[in-house]
Amino acid sequence: MKTINIIGLGNVAFHLIQKINTLPNYKLQQVAVRNRENAKDILASNQIVTQISDLQTADLTIISVSDEAIKQVSEAIPYQNQLVVHTSGTTSMEILRTHNRRGVFYPLQTFSKSRKVDFENIPLCIETTNENDGEELKTLAYQMSEKVFMISSEQRKSLHVAAVFVSNFVNHMYSIGNEICEENEVPFEVLHPLIQETAAKIKTLAPLKAQTGPAIRHDEITLKTHQEFLKNETYKNIYKTITESIQNV
Amino acid sequence: MKTINIIGLGNVAFHLIQKINTLPNYKLQQVAVRNRENAKDILASNQIVTQISDLQTADLTIISVSDEAIKQVSEAIPYQNQLVVHTSGTTSMEILRTHNRRGVFYPLQTFSKSRKVDFENIPLCIETTNENDGEELKTLAYQMSEKVFMISSEQRKSLHVAAVFVSNFVNHMYSIGNEICEENEVPFEVLHPLIQETAAKIKTLAPLKAQTGPAIRHDEITLKTHQEFLKNETYKNIYKTITESIQNV
Repeated sequence: MKTINIIGLGNVAFHLIQKINTLPNYKLQQVAVRNRENAKDILASNQIVTQISDLQTADLTIISVSDEAIKQVSEAIPYQNQLVVHTSGTTSMEILRTHNRRGVFYPLQTFSKSRKVDFENIPLCIETTNENDGEELKTLAYQMSEKVFMISSEQRKSLHVAAVFVSNFVNHMYSIGNEICEENEVPFEVLHPLIQETAAKIKTLAPLKAQTGPAIRHDEITLKTHQEFLKNETYKNIYKTITESIQNV
Repeated sequence: MKTINIIGLGNVAFHLIQKINTLPNYKLQQVAVRNRENAKDILASNQIVTQISDLQTADLTIISVSDEAIKQVSEAIPYQNQLVVHTSGTTSMEILRTHNRRGVFYPLQTFSKSRKVDFENIPLCIETTNENDGEELKTLAYQMSEKVFMISSEQRKSLHVAAVFVSNFVNHMYSIGNEICEENEVPFEVLHPLIQETAAKIKTLAPLKAQTGPAIRHDEITLKTHQEFLKNETYKNIYKTITESIQNV
């Protein structure tokens, strides 16, 4: 039985805690939180500590706090020579203090506490300084998810930039579409199936091959009509910029 | 039993033909195609004509050809005072010749012949010049889909612009993400669940509320790191433009 400590009670920690509690070969030993009250619903009271210095040695410690706090938190861990990982997509592994063996356990998904997460489909990106620790993390990861990847800090950085494009920027495209619909009294739900199909397509088709629309067709009449239609200068600029990018690929 | 003629054998016509063939109260009378050979697999030989002038009077005629050809095709229809609709998202209803009653029957989805389409989930956007025709089209539409909307030509135009944002531009974001992954030897499938979740979220959450990421958090350090990471000037420009737009909403 391997023991695990978790530090933090944010969105990622919240889901990790519940998942680890279901795993037969792991024991969630302690969770360090700021506020004991917030943790009571999902943890037994003897699992909760409010000081990192009260954590007892565990085989694995998962730091799941805001990026800015990772360094300081890792320095406060009272034991040494154990495996300590963070769950951040943007933070280098090197930021962790070297009195413990370092690693990263990054679940690549948007989490919110109110939405149930199907862990099996979440890619877990793993990095460690030594191979044994890599195997340990992989063993844990494969009990949570079918999708486990060894990803270096440098690759993780690129992945995070890519994620901004395919998730944050995509969502902003949805926002603009929604706004255009509202202004013209068209229900946004008319576009829902198109949105789902566009996302579903790339599971079987490379996005470059899936590209459709007036830009890739060089349909200059439609492109002109659309740009004249857009009164919002920012959206008009986005329309032009992305259209040119599609045409230059 | 209502009779229907279809003109064209493109992606939309291809799927409409197969759907209409399953409807009990409608008879697919004739389909006008350029090349008889292409139609043989899905139509009986007495249903196929190669000249629009050979079409016999039908209660409803669906013109499903390229936007440029709609006007000319509508003028060639040899009968009059029947309901004639086109299936285009970008073309005004007024382009249809007035010797028949005019309308639009626009399925808002990306079609490709190789992908099976679940018609029940496709929003059908309907427009007619008179109310009776609207009811007729609605009756047909509700036999195909649960999602039927009365949409004016002006609204349809706005919908098409919105569709470019939420589908074509979104797909380009996927392309950029894919390219960044490839350059850094990260499998693009690591991002698939995030892409699906981002699309799924907006079914229950308005996109403006679903916005996450460094732009909306005004996380200047990450934004700077990402822009320095991007060597492609076009992508860097897209990153800046969309980030500013997210922050200005």
